[in-house]
Amino acid sequence: MIKVGILGVGTVGQSVVKILQENGDIISARAGVKIVPVIGAVKDLNKKRGVDIELTDNPMEVVDNPEIDIVVELMGGVEEPYRLVKKALENGKSVVTANKALLAYHRYELQEIAGSLPLFYEASVAGGIPIIGALRNGLSANHIESIVGILNGTCNYMLTKMIQEGVEYDEVLKEAQALGYAEADPTFDVGGFDAAHKLLILASIAYGIDAKPEDILIEGIENITSSDVEFAKEFGYEIKLLGIAKKVNGSVEIRVHPSMIKSSHPIAKVDGVMNAVSVVGDRVGQTMFYGPGAGGDATASAVIADIIEIARGNRGPMLGYKRGLESGLKLINSDNIESKYYLKLKVLDKPGVLAAVTSVLSECGISISSVLQKDSRIQNRVRLLLTTHKFKEADIKEAIEKLKALEAVGDNVSMMRIVE
Amino acid sequence: MIKVGILGVGTVGQSVVKILQENGDIISARAGVKIVPVIGAVKDLNKKRGVDIELTDNPMEVVDNPEIDIVVELMGGVEEPYRLVKKALENGKSVVTANKALLAYHRYELQEIAGSLPLFYEASVAGGIPIIGALRNGLSANHIESIVGILNGTCNYMLTKMIQEGVEYDEVLKEAQALGYAEADPTFDVGGFDAAHKLLILASIAYGIDAKPEDILIEGIENITSSDVEFAKEFGYEIKLLGIAKKVNGSVEIRVHPSMIKSSHPIAKVDGVMNAVSVVGDRVGQTMFYGPGAGGDATASAVIADIIEIARGNRGPMLGYKRGLESGLKLINSDNIESKYYLKLKVLDKPGVLAAVTSVLSECGISISSVLQKDSRIQNRVRLLLTTHKFKEADIKEAIEKLKALEAVGDNVSMMRIVE
Repeated sequence: MIKVGILGVGTVGQSVVKILQENGDIISARAGVKIVPVIGAVKDLNKKRGVDIELTDNPMEVVDNPEIDIVVELMGGVEEPYRLVKKALENGKSVVTANKALLAYHRYELQEIAGSLPLFYEASVAGGIPIIGALRNGLSANHIESIVGILNGTCNYMLTKMIQEGVEYDEVLKEAQALGYAEADPTFDVGGFDAAHKLLILASIAYGIDAKPEDILIEGIENITSSDVEFAKEFGYEIKLLGIAKKVNGSVEIRVHPSMIKSSHPIAKVDGVMNAVSVVGDRVGQTMFYGPGAGGDATASAVIADIIEIARGNRGPMLGYKRGLESGLKLINSDNIESKYYLKLKVLDKPGVLAAVTSVLSECGISISSVLQKDSRIQNRVRLLLTTHKFKEADIKEAIEKLKALEAVGDNVSMMRIVE
Repeated sequence: MIKVGILGVGTVGQSVVKILQENGDIISARAGVKIVPVIGAVKDLNKKRGVDIELTDNPMEVVDNPEIDIVVELMGGVEEPYRLVKKALENGKSVVTANKALLAYHRYELQEIAGSLPLFYEASVAGGIPIIGALRNGLSANHIESIVGILNGTCNYMLTKMIQEGVEYDEVLKEAQALGYAEADPTFDVGGFDAAHKLLILASIAYGIDAKPEDILIEGIENITSSDVEFAKEFGYEIKLLGIAKKVNGSVEIRVHPSMIKSSHPIAKVDGVMNAVSVVGDRVGQTMFYGPGAGGDATASAVIADIIEIARGNRGPMLGYKRGLESGLKLINSDNIESKYYLKLKVLDKPGVLAAVTSVLSECGISISSVLQKDSRIQNRVRLLLTTHKFKEADIKEAIEKLKALEAVGDNVSMMRIVE
């Protein structure tokens, strides 16, 4: 029998307990041993939970408990769970965590501390989709060329609504909050931070890159409007919040931002709260993994898969390699990332403005690929939508600054990256 | 250092050797040890191969070789590789195979023989897609509700061409043969047998069902015509050769056949030679895994992933469970499988025929869901296309026999199942 202690008995923790009990037949058969949830640590013992395990408000009673074989960390946060997971590992316990923030900041220290003890985290990225296993095991013969993921179901739900039903951002955010898809303070999701945490974990497995959220380009979906949606439809794009990790000329770029992506790309067809990750390997070619990225049961499905792996005696190396990965792979400075861009301007409706805009771009060396100007005036201004060929972030930022300096433009410029 | 011997150095075998050598940096880092291909057994030593390992025409020099740690079986066939894999396991060697026919017939004996030695087979199903790992490990907390797969790239390429370009079966088969996607004798692919072998492997992991190809419903794509394609388009379906394993009322149905599937289903969007497997688990919900189902490098990617797992010391249980899986799960007799059906009739163009057809169906208790009769006459006959509500295979077969007995119909009836 393997005894499990749980830190944090919220939605996912309750699902873990229930599934271990209700699917006990198949879990025991697959693990070769009975797996029993024994104790859970919670903040507030007075809050009612629908599970019949012992509860404590002292997490040390889980972490220091000599009976417990596997500690499951589902608390959220960074430093408190780090301290507890570290203690659990020092006590010789195996650990399963769904905590992407913990790993975004401490995965390399934790790998060091874990040593040969298993520390698994399938649930930390893309919920129920077994993408960690796919990348760490199934595609391990490949140099990974790129990872492109829809890693945040809240954003994907909102963008799908905006595109399919023409609902504006503020309205769809309220809907998402009412449905429980978005938090009261939605920043962590809509700002791209949640997706960035997940992407950093994937990038570590693929490339061994030790970066923190602060080191990478992160933009959220807050400024997307119906005119962007209209443009996307007109030119055959979908708008998705994408996490991208990609090898370019021996370096690695890691970035999260709203993206225009051709409707024919497999990942562009992923709608609603679903997640998907497309991985291109140098030998396997293009693969894609699709499924629910959140939800108590789907996330618990991944947590328990890790528990079963531990019960089977599989150790894996935590980040997918036993010694240093590819040497010399460095993170590219965000300013040097190259992309095609979509520019949205609201310009004063007077003669010579288009000429002024295009000559600023031309001075900055930015060449234009397509232009859309529709005859719709709002308060003396018209919308001018452009796409560019491929340039560096630094170049497009400079061009945007110069555009803003034009009297006819001012602050009315925004940009979105086009992903191929 | 881990030394690998290969049985069968064809396209996949050559890719395995090349990738182990060319991607040696990342493979060593991930495996924690250098993996070296040492010897390969081939039928004809005079045939040129583009790899620099020792070659022999005596497979026992691989299987009995005391230097070899892992035997990779890529020969094809059933009884000869069975004998050799058995010998390798008896000699204490780990085994990796890409041979779906071997496993379709001998997976349970091999599991027995392997005992605690790893016998891995990620490459046997859906080429480079790590679906075995997903099902065996990533989704192991779930009772699997259904598996629906596009498991044969040849058929999917042909059907995509027929649907998108209106090319007839015979012509697209010639094209597929010219491109190397189909064999000179294409029966194994177009007859559904290849997909059936793969499906049986997946069904074993999900359900523990010990069935052989002879025990299940297998139909190929040979009789699909442009009128079926036309109907599919008209009613919003795609036509796919699907492998389906599904739990229904405590039993399991396993079947491979051309299917009408709604264009909106994620798997309906998978075109060309690509493979995809959709898995629904009781806790995770719907997942899908997509990628290249064939090709030397993609298949070798999966073979080497297994080698790396063995090098890491992971043992897994071969079929995903250490003791009997769910008790009482039995294979449903094909006659009792329930489905909606599409019926295609070419009937004599005379009064009363539609009435005769519908009254035969009504006598058999088959109720009709939709009818399409277009005003296009071929040699005195018109096409009548129908869909039905849900009935058992036995009922629809009886109805078809009775329809054939009608003078106005004769042998001009064919059927395709509709999958929801």
